[in-house]
Amino acid sequence: MRGTDSQLVRQEEQRQDLGFGTKINSGFGRLINKDGSFNINRRNESFWDRLNLYNRLITMSWPQFFGWVLLFYLTANLFFASIYLLAGADGLKGTTDVDNFGLFWKAYFFSSQTMTTVGYGHIAPNTFTASLIASFESVIGLLAFALATGLLYGRFSRPVAHIRFTKKSVLAPYLDVNAWMFRIINARANQLIDVQIEVSLSMLETKPDGTLTRRYSSLKLERQQVNFFPTNWTLVHPITEDSPLHGCTPEDLARSDAEFLILLRATDDTFSQIVHSRHSYRYDEVLWGRKFKPMFDSSRQGLVSVDLNALDDTYVAALN
Amino acid sequence: MRGTDSQLVRQEEQRQDLGFGTKINSGFGRLINKDGSFNINRRNESFWDRLNLYNRLITMSWPQFFGWVLLFYLTANLFFASIYLLAGADGLKGTTDVDNFGLFWKAYFFSSQTMTTVGYGHIAPNTFTASLIASFESVIGLLAFALATGLLYGRFSRPVAHIRFTKKSVLAPYLDVNAWMFRIINARANQLIDVQIEVSLSMLETKPDGTLTRRYSSLKLERQQVNFFPTNWTLVHPITEDSPLHGCTPEDLARSDAEFLILLRATDDTFSQIVHSRHSYRYDEVLWGRKFKPMFDSSRQGLVSVDLNALDDTYVAALN
Amino acid sequence: MRGTDSQLVRQEEQRQDLGFGTKINSGFGRLINKDGSFNINRRNESFWDRLNLYNRLITMSWPQFFGWVLLFYLTANLFFASIYLLAGADGLKGTTDVDNFGLFWKAYFFSSQTMTTVGYGHIAPNTFTASLIASFESVIGLLAFALATGLLYGRFSRPVAHIRFTKKSVLAPYLDVNAWMFRIINARANQLIDVQIEVSLSMLETKPDGTLTRRYSSLKLERQQVNFFPTNWTLVHPITEDSPLHGCTPEDLARSDAEFLILLRATDDTFSQIVHSRHSYRYDEVLWGRKFKPMFDSSRQGLVSVDLNALDDTYVAALN
Amino acid sequence: MRGTDSQLVRQEEQRQDLGFGTKINSGFGRLINKDGSFNINRRNESFWDRLNLYNRLITMSWPQFFGWVLLFYLTANLFFASIYLLAGADGLKGTTDVDNFGLFWKAYFFSSQTMTTVGYGHIAPNTFTASLIASFESVIGLLAFALATGLLYGRFSRPVAHIRFTKKSVLAPYLDVNAWMFRIINARANQLIDVQIEVSLSMLETKPDGTLTRRYSSLKLERQQVNFFPTNWTLVHPITEDSPLHGCTPEDLARSDAEFLILLRATDDTFSQIVHSRHSYRYDEVLWGRKFKPMFDSSRQGLVSVDLNALDDTYVAALN
Repeated sequence: MRGTDSQLVRQEEQRQDLGFGTKINSGFGRLINKDGSFNINRRNESFWDRLNLYNRLITMSWPQFFGWVLLFYLTANLFFASIYLLAGADGLKGTTDVDNFGLFWKAYFFSSQTMTTVGYGHIAPNTFTASLIASFESVIGLLAFALATGLLYGRFSRPVAHIRFTKKSVLAPYLDVNAWMFRIINARANQLIDVQIEVSLSMLETKPDGTLTRRYSSLKLERQQVNFFPTNWTLVHPITEDSPLHGCTPEDLARSDAEFLILLRATDDTFSQIVHSRHSYRYDEVLWGRKFKPMFDSSRQGLVSVDLNALDDTYVAALN
Repeated sequence: MRGTDSQLVRQEEQRQDLGFGTKINSGFGRLINKDGSFNINRRNESFWDRLNLYNRLITMSWPQFFGWVLLFYLTANLFFASIYLLAGADGLKGTTDVDNFGLFWKAYFFSSQTMTTVGYGHIAPNTFTASLIASFESVIGLLAFALATGLLYGRFSRPVAHIRFTKKSVLAPYLDVNAWMFRIINARANQLIDVQIEVSLSMLETKPDGTLTRRYSSLKLERQQVNFFPTNWTLVHPITEDSPLHGCTPEDLARSDAEFLILLRATDDTFSQIVHSRHSYRYDEVLWGRKFKPMFDSSRQGLVSVDLNALDDTYVAALN
Repeated sequence: MRGTDSQLVRQEEQRQDLGFGTKINSGFGRLINKDGSFNINRRNESFWDRLNLYNRLITMSWPQFFGWVLLFYLTANLFFASIYLLAGADGLKGTTDVDNFGLFWKAYFFSSQTMTTVGYGHIAPNTFTASLIASFESVIGLLAFALATGLLYGRFSRPVAHIRFTKKSVLAPYLDVNAWMFRIINARANQLIDVQIEVSLSMLETKPDGTLTRRYSSLKLERQQVNFFPTNWTLVHPITEDSPLHGCTPEDLARSDAEFLILLRATDDTFSQIVHSRHSYRYDEVLWGRKFKPMFDSSRQGLVSVDLNALDDTYVAALN
Repeated sequence: MRGTDSQLVRQEEQRQDLGFGTKINSGFGRLINKDGSFNINRRNESFWDRLNLYNRLITMSWPQFFGWVLLFYLTANLFFASIYLLAGADGLKGTTDVDNFGLFWKAYFFSSQTMTTVGYGHIAPNTFTASLIASFESVIGLLAFALATGLLYGRFSRPVAHIRFTKKSVLAPYLDVNAWMFRIINARANQLIDVQIEVSLSMLETKPDGTLTRRYSSLKLERQQVNFFPTNWTLVHPITEDSPLHGCTPEDLARSDAEFLILLRATDDTFSQIVHSRHSYRYDEVLWGRKFKPMFDSSRQGLVSVDLNALDDTYVAALN
C-alpha cells in the first residue's frame, strides 16, 4: 500500500484541475470562448510557432484558402516575369506574333505556362539563362501544386465535429428536482457514434485569507455517453443534494463568475476518426425556469422527423 | 460516496438508452435500415450540411464517381470554350490547319489541352485576353486534379469493414437452453483483429398511463470479442432466465415491434484502422427453430476451407 | 447481479477462444503461418473481394509495384496508339519529319506525350476525332497519375512493425523453475513505444466421446508490456504449477499439435500509428534445454551496443 | 485465483522495467538523449533498415528536404541529358535556333522540360530512340513528383508535439514537504488535450554480490493528466515517505547515476492525432533549493497572458 504522510499533499491531489490552474483568471472573464478556443494570450511566441502555417492553411475558410492560392500564383508569376525580363529581352522567342501585347506580358504568360507545365511552346526560352530559369520555375511549380494537393486533402480529411449547441442552457424542472440542461444536434449528415460528454463547473471562491481562487467540479450527467447520435440529445445535470449547484441562485452564479465547460468526444462513422468539440456556457447564458421544446414531428407513421430549426426553442416551466 | 436523494433520478440513470430516445418512433418502423443507416428524417438541414460534398464523393460507387469527374471535365471545357469564343475569334491561332473542324471545337480542344496542361501548342493563345483566360484555366485545372488526387486517395484509404451478416437470425436450441443467434463473415481478404460486438434489443412497452414507450436492453453474448476473425463467427445470446427474451413467443416480439440492434467494432490489420459496422434484425427476421449449418469443409488434412456461400444455410432444429 | 441458470452455458462462457473456433483444424496443421497470415482457405469468395486491388497494390514489393505501373503505362499507350491509327492516319500531323520511324510509333509516342501531359506539340491532333481521343486520353492520364500518387503515399505511410522474432523459441532454466522463451528485436530504426504482447497456447484434446477438440489457453508472461523498446526483449513464460505446460514433455506437445500464437501491438513513435504483428511457434520450433545468449556488447563506457546478428544465438543449459 | 509457486518468479514479476533491461548500461551514461532519442548503438543493422528512407525524408529539416529534391532533379537531368547525347546528336531537333548554347545544354533543358512535363516542343525528340527515352523520362518524372506530393503531405501531417521542457528540473519546497518539479509549455499555437505524463526514476544499485544493476521506479505525480493545456503546467512529484527520492542528497543521486525518464502522451486537437514526447533529466540537471517563477501576467482584467520566455525562470527557496 502506498500511503502519503502529508495531509496537505493528499488534499492537493484530490483537488480537480482541468489544466487551467487555480491562479489563472482570478479576475473575471470567460475561460473558453464561444468558438471553443481558449481565452489566453501567449506572449513571446516565436514567429514560426505563431504563424503555424500548415494549421492556418488547413483551418481557414474555403474562400480565404483559394484567395491565398491565387495570390501566390499571381505573385510568383510577376516575380518570374521580372526575372525573365532582367535576364534579357531576347530570352523568350515566340514562334508567332505574340509580341503584340508587349514584352512584360509575354514574359508573364510564359511564366504562367511554365509554372503550370502547360508549355504551349509558342513562347519558348531561347537563351541559356532563360532556359535555366524556366527549368527551375517548372520544378517549383510542380512542388507548389504538390503542396496544394496535400493541403486540399488535409482540409477535406480533417476530423471535425459539426456539433450545434443550444445558444443558451436552461435550468428547468426535471422529475421531482430541478436540472441544468443543454441540447446538441449533429449539424452534418454523417453519423457520429460513441459520443461522450464531460461537463465541469468553474467557480471563483474566496479563500480564508481573502484572495480569490478558482475551483473546478465535474458535473454528474444523467447520461454521459450514447452509442448512436441520429437525432438530438439533451444533456441533463440533475441538481440533487451532492451537486455544486444545489441551492444556488442566479446571483450566486454571477458572483462566482460561474462557467460550465464542456468537452465532447465522438467517432465519425465515415472515416472512423475521433472528433472533439469544446463549448462553454457562462452564468449569463443560463435561462432559469425554461424547458426545451421537443424537436420531433412524429405525425407520420414509421418515419421520425427532426426539425433542426427547433434546436433553441424553449417554453416557460415553473421550477420545483 | 456520491448519493442521490431523488428516487426518480436514480431510476432514470439506470435506464439504458442507445441515443435514440424513448419518445422517438413510438409508432412502428425500424430504427436501423438494412444498410446500417438510421431511419430518421432531418428537416431544415442547411444546404451545405445536406450536400455534404466530400462525404458523398468519398462514399458513392466507382461508376458514379468517374461519371461526376467526366461530367465536370466536359462542362468545364464547354464553359471555357464559350469564354474563349466570347473573347474574340482571333484569340486562338493554330500553327497548322486545325480550323477545319470549326471555331467552337478549336476552342473546346484548346481548353481541354490547357486544363490538363498537355498544351501541344498547335493551338495557342494569341491575344492578351486569351492568354489571361488560359493562365487561369491552367491553374484551375491543376487544382481540380489536385482535388481528384485527394478524393481518389480518400476513397481507397477509407476504413470500411466488409462484414456480411446472415440475412436472417435464428432462434435455435443451444446446450440445454435456447439461444438467439446470427452469423458473420469477413467478405474481404484483409484480416480483422480485435473484433467486438454489442447487441441491444429495442421493444415497445405500454406505460401505466397507456402510452407506448421504447425500452432498450443490452443482450449478453456468450462471447463479445475475438482476437482473430479468419473464418466465420456465430454470435450467441443464450436465453437464460435473466434474458429479456425469456419466455417470449414470436407474437410477443411482433407486438412489441422488437428490433435487434448490432454494433461491430474491429481493427483492420493492413492499415491499423478502426472499422465499424451496424446492422439490425427485426422480429420478422428471426427464424424460429432453425440452426446454422457449419461452413467448414475439413475433408483435407492440415488446411481448413470455409465456403462463403454457405453463410445463410440453416436446418430445422427442435427448440428446448 | 446477473445469474445464469444453466451450468453448461456458464462453462461455455469461460472457455477461451481466439476466434478460430474449436472445430476448425481438428486435423493437424498450423493455424498461423510464419508470415503472420492465417492457414485458412476461403471458397466462393467473389472476384473483387478476392482481388482486393488496393490492398495488393499497397502490400506488394516495390519491384512488383513499379513493374505493374510500367506495364499499365505501356499497355495503355499501345491501346491508344491503336485507336489513333483506327481513327485515320491523317489524324496526327507532325510539324517536323517525325514520320521517319513509321505511323505506329508516331501514334505510340504521341499517346505517351498526351498521357503524361508533356505535349511537345511536334506531333499534334489534326482532326476532330483525334482531338477528341486526345482530350480523353489526357484526362485518363491525369487520373492514373493521381491514383499512383495516392498509392505511393499509401505504401509509404502504411503502419508496419518490422519485428524480428527468433527463428526458434527455447525451453530454458529460469530462476528456480523452467520457462518457455522467445526473443524479439525492432528491425527498423524508428522507435516503438507501449509494446504489448499476448501469447496463447493451442492444443488438441481428446473429449470423453473420443473426438478431438482444440483448446486455447492464454500464457502468463513475466512481463506483458514495456514502455520503450530500444534494444531486444526476451519474452518469458515461467512454467509454474498453474501453467498448461507444467509437466509437459516434447512428446506431449507433439501429440497435442501444440502451437504458440503470438499477437504484438505497439505504437510507432514517428507517426503515432498503432502497429500489429502476428507470429507462431509450433511444437517442433521449441529448443529444449537451450538459453539465448546476450546481444549486448557493453565493453565501451556510456554507450550500449546491440548486435542484431546475435538474435538467434543460444547455448546449452540444463533444465531444472 | 492464479497462484505462483515460485517466490523468485513472483519477485521478478513485480520488478519494474521500462524496456531497457537491467543489464543495459550498468556503466555510466544517459539512457534518453536530450532530443528524446535513445542512447543505444545498433550493430549489424541491414542497409535498408539503417537507411529508413521514408522516415528520414519525413523527419529531416525543410532546407535539407528541399536540398535533396533539388539535388535529385539536377542529377536526374544530367543523367538523361547524357543518355540523349549517347543516343545520337540528331535525336533532338529544335524548331528554332536553340543550338546556340551547345548540344549538351540543349539535351539538358530538353530533359528538364520532359521530366516536369512542360514540353514546350521547341526542342522535340526526332528519332525513335530519343522518343523512347523521352517517353520513359516523362513517366519517371510524374512518379517522382507523385512521390514528392506524398512526402510533402506526410511531412505536414505528421503528428508532432512541440512541447518545451524546462532546461533543468528543480527540487523545491512544496506545501509541508519538498518536491521534485519540472515545467512544460506547448510551443505551438494548436491545442493539446488529454495530456498524460509518466515519470520513472532510473538508479544504479549494488547487488549483494557487488555487481551493479539498474532499478526503475515510477514516480507518483500530484497530477498525472489534464484535460486542457492552454498555458503552462508544472509537474510535481512530492517527496513523501514512500518516494524513492526520500532522504536522498545530491551526492546520492550522482553516485547512483540517477536519471528521470519522462513520457508524455497527448491529443492534438486540430487533427485528433495522438502525439508523444520523451525527455529526461539526469542528476546534474536538478537545481536544489530553487522554485519556478509564475509565467502569468494577470495585470489586465479578463485576459490572461502567458510569457513563454519565462519558462526557465527560477528563484532561491529554502528546502523544508
